[in-house]
Amino acid sequence: MKLDHTAAGVYAIAATPFHPDGRLDTASVDRLTDFYVECGVTGLTILGIMGEAPKLEPEESLAITRQVVKRAGVPIIVGVSAPGFAAMRSLARSAMDLGAAGVMIAPPPSLRTDDQIVGYYAQAVEAIGDDIPFVIQDYPLTLTVVMTPGVIRRIVMDHPSCVMLKHEDWPGLEKISRLRAFQAAGEMKPISILCGNGGLFLDFEMERGADGAMTGYAFPDMLVDVVKLQKAGRRDDAHDLFDAHLPLVRYEQQQGIGLAVRKYVLQKRGAIAHDAQRRPASGLTPAAKAEIDYLLGRVARYDARAKI
Amino acid sequence: MKLDHTAAGVYAIAATPFHPDGRLDTASVDRLTDFYVECGVTGLTILGIMGEAPKLEPEESLAITRQVVKRAGVPIIVGVSAPGFAAMRSLARSAMDLGAAGVMIAPPPSLRTDDQIVGYYAQAVEAIGDDIPFVIQDYPLTLTVVMTPGVIRRIVMDHPSCVMLKHEDWPGLEKISRLRAFQAAGEMKPISILCGNGGLFLDFEMERGADGAMTGYAFPDMLVDVVKLQKAGRRDDAHDLFDAHLPLVRYEQQQGIGLAVRKYVLQKRGAIAHDAQRRPASGLTPAAKAEIDYLLGRVARYDARAKI
Amino acid sequence: MKLDHTAAGVYAIAATPFHPDGRLDTASVDRLTDFYVECGVTGLTILGIMGEAPKLEPEESLAITRQVVKRAGVPIIVGVSAPGFAAMRSLARSAMDLGAAGVMIAPPPSLRTDDQIVGYYAQAVEAIGDDIPFVIQDYPLTLTVVMTPGVIRRIVMDHPSCVMLKHEDWPGLEKISRLRAFQAAGEMKPISILCGNGGLFLDFEMERGADGAMTGYAFPDMLVDVVKLQKAGRRDDAHDLFDAHLPLVRYEQQQGIGLAVRKYVLQKRGAIAHDAQRRPASGLTPAAKAEIDYLLGRVARYDARAKI
Amino acid sequence: MKLDHTAAGVYAIAATPFHPDGRLDTASVDRLTDFYVECGVTGLTILGIMGEAPKLEPEESLAITRQVVKRAGVPIIVGVSAPGFAAMRSLARSAMDLGAAGVMIAPPPSLRTDDQIVGYYAQAVEAIGDDIPFVIQDYPLTLTVVMTPGVIRRIVMDHPSCVMLKHEDWPGLEKISRLRAFQAAGEMKPISILCGNGGLFLDFEMERGADGAMTGYAFPDMLVDVVKLQKAGRRDDAHDLFDAHLPLVRYEQQQGIGLAVRKYVLQKRGAIAHDAQRRPASGLTPAAKAEIDYLLGRVARYDARAKI
Repeated sequence: MKLDHTAAGVYAIAATPFHPDGRLDTASVDRLTDFYVECGVTGLTILGIMGEAPKLEPEESLAITRQVVKRAGVPIIVGVSAPGFAAMRSLARSAMDLGAAGVMIAPPPSLRTDDQIVGYYAQAVEAIGDDIPFVIQDYPLTLTVVMTPGVIRRIVMDHPSCVMLKHEDWPGLEKISRLRAFQAAGEMKPISILCGNGGLFLDFEMERGADGAMTGYAFPDMLVDVVKLQKAGRRDDAHDLFDAHLPLVRYEQQQGIGLAVRKYVLQKRGAIAHDAQRRPASGLTPAAKAEIDYLLGRVARYDARAKI
Repeated sequence: MKLDHTAAGVYAIAATPFHPDGRLDTASVDRLTDFYVECGVTGLTILGIMGEAPKLEPEESLAITRQVVKRAGVPIIVGVSAPGFAAMRSLARSAMDLGAAGVMIAPPPSLRTDDQIVGYYAQAVEAIGDDIPFVIQDYPLTLTVVMTPGVIRRIVMDHPSCVMLKHEDWPGLEKISRLRAFQAAGEMKPISILCGNGGLFLDFEMERGADGAMTGYAFPDMLVDVVKLQKAGRRDDAHDLFDAHLPLVRYEQQQGIGLAVRKYVLQKRGAIAHDAQRRPASGLTPAAKAEIDYLLGRVARYDARAKI
Repeated sequence: MKLDHTAAGVYAIAATPFHPDGRLDTASVDRLTDFYVECGVTGLTILGIMGEAPKLEPEESLAITRQVVKRAGVPIIVGVSAPGFAAMRSLARSAMDLGAAGVMIAPPPSLRTDDQIVGYYAQAVEAIGDDIPFVIQDYPLTLTVVMTPGVIRRIVMDHPSCVMLKHEDWPGLEKISRLRAFQAAGEMKPISILCGNGGLFLDFEMERGADGAMTGYAFPDMLVDVVKLQKAGRRDDAHDLFDAHLPLVRYEQQQGIGLAVRKYVLQKRGAIAHDAQRRPASGLTPAAKAEIDYLLGRVARYDARAKI
Repeated sequence: MKLDHTAAGVYAIAATPFHPDGRLDTASVDRLTDFYVECGVTGLTILGIMGEAPKLEPEESLAITRQVVKRAGVPIIVGVSAPGFAAMRSLARSAMDLGAAGVMIAPPPSLRTDDQIVGYYAQAVEAIGDDIPFVIQDYPLTLTVVMTPGVIRRIVMDHPSCVMLKHEDWPGLEKISRLRAFQAAGEMKPISILCGNGGLFLDFEMERGADGAMTGYAFPDMLVDVVKLQKAGRRDDAHDLFDAHLPLVRYEQQQGIGLAVRKYVLQKRGAIAHDAQRRPASGLTPAAKAEIDYLLGRVARYDARAKI
């Protein structure tokens, strides 16, 4: 079950559950995987930044991949961004051997020119092999690498194995329109576009032509519903649901503490046993927790799933 | 009427109105000034980034300052950030001579260490004189300069003329709490804290101890109401109003096209004659305009001021 | 006498002389201009970063331009990089009215993609007018903007008024070869290439096809000689002279204190009355001064002009 | 044999030899190790950026460490900088188990404030354990992290296991003087300071109080001699030798192609069998090779070791 350009719906960016003492919480890995599937996601993305991948030993990364692939029954994308191509290749090949559907590659922050970016992906494909479907992660806010639609097209056209864009440029609505226009004009082969940025613009991204979301908001079920409502043409309903969650989406989208917010809510929802992060960890003050509780209460007036 | 640390409420970041051919639209300068005052702002900030200051000739900057100071009847803060201290000094002295209440200074993006930042503000104060009240602009998302609470305290304590923080760190709620804790412990003299970032976190910023907002959202009247409601202890009402606007606040907060969104709405509200920017200008596609219109329609279900 | 693509030789980046109390030292402006001309430079570049341009009031900038143009009798290039196009246009038009030969424009550090860079120069040309010859400043080490040879070609081909590249990419020898290959293949119109970076690679840059140097090393006469020797095919002689100066060239090339080193030597050579910088200024410790004196003594064993 | 603050002399940054097809060239690992030791180095640093560490599989990194430790008979420092603390810990513990003398840690480019930098080293020490001697790598030109002398002192004083500074700030002479002044005033415990930056300022760095060099210039024997001459008080002799090499030192110091230059010369000197880099690799044009050959010829007029 390899990833291809028809991928759509919601790929949840999976958190990695830990015990308070820093050990992997493998029971919660199962529990969280089940939670995502019950939320209706079409796939999962593991070992990304928000999955605390850099804190994991290599064997832990593989163990998680094995466990999630076996449990989930949905396609798994594995983040393989690495400072060197040796580590990238090694993780990518192992992940595919374990049953992953594809891998995701972010550009290193040092890239500047169009040619450097295109060249980097060529080197990455050479490293991992052209038989592994991959996702471009376009995330300038954190990575400081800016890809024009034309650069993305070059990468897509250079590599048949490039099947998806994780779109988290910001702002990015026009970029989606532009890429879909390339396709419509026959200037680019079709790709799947799933949107990140915590879902902050998912309402309109769907209207611009996105196929869904790839992000880790603690209510993946809301993301699933918004995607379905938009695909069903129920625009107002989609926005009503989205807007009810937006105050919390925005709160979780804060850089640095976002993961702490997300795990706090996931724990409250029973999806993981502890909201612990492996060290070095960011934490929530009592004031922040009270703010999240207040926001959950407000969301719950519209969406009963937030009554926790 | 000089700015001091008791400043509170909403200081609108004023747009600069142009004719479609790029000339200053002085009639709209008056109209927009009146609009802000009628919205209930307690002050105005002019010649900031969102005021297209770098596109103005020096004489135009002074002419706008003169016109707005005369018309507004509320305190005016003038942005004087400049690549050199000569230009900064020159604009600051002229602005104060014309009746401005104070100036705002952003750190240049090249600063890295704590000492460099503190040293830069010392040089700036030496350049403009220690008799001009000034505002620190703390905006890492755009400026890439990161100031810890301790660095802000050093600047505040070094300079009696430092009376306000324009807070747009992101995330920044804990920073407000920290600075207020410094004050409560007698470790920092009192300052005014007004929050930017398009108002995206104003609901909670007020609860953390901010004195108000300094931002340019096209509904300053909403910002004014949220500040008032929070000060009156009407928390739920404040959030209800804020949340109704949040989808549009978020949309306007997009980097790069935010000013185009803002001017589009200001024109629709009748506050300026044209939504033109002086070149080089960013523009809105028909798709973007339709999205804003849709959002306005949704806001209007709760807040009649958005019926336009 | 307008700048065109045949410009060659050495354009000295002129320092700006100040009195110790910060006032412009106009007597030294004449003295320094004469010094440069006596050194054999073919032109001068004023109001660049190393000319402390951002510390000058606008009237001072114009006064210096007027004085140098009148005195020098060689073509003058004026740095007009500015955060806004209004200031750029204003300074460019005034400089040309005063008799400048052309202007130099650096890209702002925020530019990332190829299209952004090309677009910026298009906007700049629109602002200053297409009748003013201009120089592209390609200086990634300080400006963080990376231009490929292809991007430079696009700018050159888009604008007949683009006549020169100030080349200070680092490393950059292959870039010169590449641009000259474009020309040889008829894929780019001829441009003048003058090299910066303090002259650190001038020996080989000439061999790769550069037309000369544009930099501010305190021995412009050495730069002039190296250019002449290389053009005369006296390779070993050129390297002998260059290498004798290289320890000092390297010392002066240090970021942050380079200007202090340069002014210290210019004062010792009698070209300016004081080595003062206008505030904020970097200074030399006694240890640094002793090191420079030691280096001058060593250079003097080969080049008598360093006996000072 | 653990690293401590008395370390002095030259620690060569070791290249990693590959076959043209990308396989590790283990025969050359021995040959290169012998070469360094015969050059008179007091230690070696392996698995740094210039050792192509990110291109190595984890088992290769360990195999090289094992081979070099066994062969060299001098202290080995291992670069363990990594995006995550798990990988850093894992490599550090393994390296020490294999007999390394200490490890080197560079700060990640995202760090900005003083507290972030100090905090990062605290987390790193917590991860690797406080029993492993470590080196701070202070390299702002590439890493964009700026550490004041005060920040370095905080790290040194917080961690008894911090025994050395790899100094490659630029410019950095005053920083050495400042740190030694801290020590002299009893405000900082003694540390070893070894200088990088390709050796570009080694002549004066020794005079400011450095203990030696840690860099990879292809003539480590020259570095060894300069350090010895300076320690013996033979200043002019030290500069004479240094200046003879400076044109090549400068050429090798070019970012991006520096490693290709270095390996080309090491191969010519017989220290490695091939100048190949593992992919992705930078290469030298024929023009560049001819330039290096020319420079070697010139160096050879003074230093016979360059006759190759």
